[in-house]
Amino acid sequence: DMAVRHYTLDINLSTPVDSASVVPGLLSIFHEQELTETIHDTNGHGYLATFVGKNGRLVVLRVHSHGLVTIDLQCHEDDNIAQLDNVRDQKRGTLFHQGSVIIFHFPSRLPALVRGAKVDRYWPTADGRLVEYDVDEVVYEEDSAYQNIKILHSQQYGNILVLDGDVNLAESDLAYTQAITGNGRENYAGKEVLILGGGDGGILAELVKQKPKMVTMKVIDGCKMYMRRTCGNTLDTLRGDCYQILIEDCVPLLKKYVQEGRTFDYVINDLTAIPISTAPEEDSMWEFLRLILDLSVRVLHPKGKYFTQGNSVNLKEALSLYEEQLGKLSCPVDFQKEVVCVPSYLEQWVFYTAWKK
Amino acid sequence: DMAVRHYTLDINLSTPVDSASVVPGLLSIFHEQELTETIHDTNGHGYLATFVGKNGRLVVLRVHSHGLVTIDLQCHEDDNIAQLDNVRDQKRGTLFHQGSVIIFHFPSRLPALVRGAKVDRYWPTADGRLVEYDVDEVVYEEDSAYQNIKILHSQQYGNILVLDGDVNLAESDLAYTQAITGNGRENYAGKEVLILGGGDGGILAELVKQKPKMVTMKVIDGCKMYMRRTCGNTLDTLRGDCYQILIEDCVPLLKKYVQEGRTFDYVINDLTAIPISTAPEEDSMWEFLRLILDLSVRVLHPKGKYFTQGNSVNLKEALSLYEEQLGKLSCPVDFQKEVVCVPSYLEQWVFYTAWKK
Repeated sequence: DMAVRHYTLDINLSTPVDSASVVPGLLSIFHEQELTETIHDTNGHGYLATFVGKNGRLVVLRVHSHGLVTIDLQCHEDDNIAQLDNVRDQKRGTLFHQGSVIIFHFPSRLPALVRGAKVDRYWPTADGRLVEYDVDEVVYEEDSAYQNIKILHSQQYGNILVLDGDVNLAESDLAYTQAITGNGRENYAGKEVLILGGGDGGILAELVKQKPKMVTMKVIDGCKMYMRRTCGNTLDTLRGDCYQILIEDCVPLLKKYVQEGRTFDYVINDLTAIPISTAPEEDSMWEFLRLILDLSVRVLHPKGKYFTQGNSVNLKEALSLYEEQLGKLSCPVDFQKEVVCVPSYLEQWVFYTAWKK
Repeated sequence: DMAVRHYTLDINLSTPVDSASVVPGLLSIFHEQELTETIHDTNGHGYLATFVGKNGRLVVLRVHSHGLVTIDLQCHEDDNIAQLDNVRDQKRGTLFHQGSVIIFHFPSRLPALVRGAKVDRYWPTADGRLVEYDVDEVVYEEDSAYQNIKILHSQQYGNILVLDGDVNLAESDLAYTQAITGNGRENYAGKEVLILGGGDGGILAELVKQKPKMVTMKVIDGCKMYMRRTCGNTLDTLRGDCYQILIEDCVPLLKKYVQEGRTFDYVINDLTAIPISTAPEEDSMWEFLRLILDLSVRVLHPKGKYFTQGNSVNLKEALSLYEEQLGKLSCPVDFQKEVVCVPSYLEQWVFYTAWKK
């Protein structure tokens, strides 16, 4: 693995800056190394120097005219960067004593970015924030016709299912399964349950404890081997005492059920989160969502409940668009929502319950 | 606010690289801009070029000899970087068609780092991971004699109390308060409870619902104004029907209780997480921890319980050192631990219960 570690150190100087006076102080960090310096012409946008070391180390030092100093250090993963770590450990005080003294408070000392590693640790949240996971291994990977499927091992969350780069479910995430089945408020014994999606087996594993009759679809191959804490043994056979797994597309199946007049006490839609795009008229994801939603409500028993996930609580526009769709169904519904903390998501997630008016 | 946005784009090329052949293709991103190019001598460590734009934009292009391409783009917050966003939106395929064609799969497209912003969004986890919060405002800040106290507003977690740069508690974190009071397994009615710390008022607010007799210490000033969802109105007065708040140091108070032979049914230590340092013999934090722990157990009723937080589940060494301390008390104890998801922590957290053997 030849990854690159990228350290950043940012200092907001407490006083307005004259670049020429602070630079000698800043440079003292690099004094003991043999670095080749290049000073760049910035057209009056502060001071910029780059330094290249013999070992391929790269330092970018920038003093912005409004007082922000940014320092970047890129080096190979096995390079010794103890020097910069010393600087980073200081919480406040004076940074450089040689040449000039700079007072600073709490520099922003970010953990190093690891770039180009075999196992990627960065899986941004749905609301677009940069988060690093404690992932140490890719245990399964497949490019299916529909999506890229990865199962990653996390030290604290267990195995994590990642679909097309989005964290989908981890073995730690019983909270997800509980939320999408009504958080313990429902009694599934003897009930007809239709699970759409749920390919990780988590919902099925929870519900079979209550002996319902049920149908489910689309199994994700790796899960039955690598997500055992989630699916138990329910995915090992396609038919159990109180369930059957159908490897079929949802839409034709739902249409068949509508034609037959078959109804379900619960429809649990675990196919996908609400699309983030805010152009529902043009987006095929939204079209698919509306189709499934409409068919699902049509196969719902008059006293039945429809459960589904929404998206990050911060994606307010996408969530209100979804709620608009709920108002436009051929069969009118009421709904409520709940905000839940799913451990591996690193963001608060919205779940919906809908029922016929 | 004159923050700098720092974009990174990393590509692992599918084939071994001859820098000279791929560089013209990579450069085509920057063709439409007026950039001043500098090519650096890397002593055989691949290709390195820096580009400076008239607007202060800085691009660093690096082609490592093992096939990793790293691109950095730093620009001011109000600069238009739509161009790089286009590149970043591609999930797989060929990146550059002019000059040469490069096949890549899922480049690592991280959300931009925002550096030097007035409101810092990066508050690394206890286990050292880089995480970004949806913080939009600093609502309170104070440098007390003991620590730096901040209350930040997060869109999804409500107000977050940050002590010396560590996320301490958010209004979303009822799970923390529940865990450190026994997760609903205890009955506090009429019990003598001693809370050490708990300055945010969360534990007190939960327990007063059960009418215990109690004592607590060290209030954090900002909390009673900005953490209302956590503390309710319990911090508004220092004495209530079933509680008193003592603004005193813990150690002399605990020693006084030991002398008086006073005991408590519950001691809840919310003072601090377990130190991360793994040199408990030299570290004053560990010394303080042992002192408090020993005194706490001495004022514990023979059938009483001691509750406290541990630390990140990933800090295995620090946790086992703590467990070692539990084995060395003047009064022998048994303990158990529980792993809990506290929403705003973005990592799994360990809580301890201890009782006299």
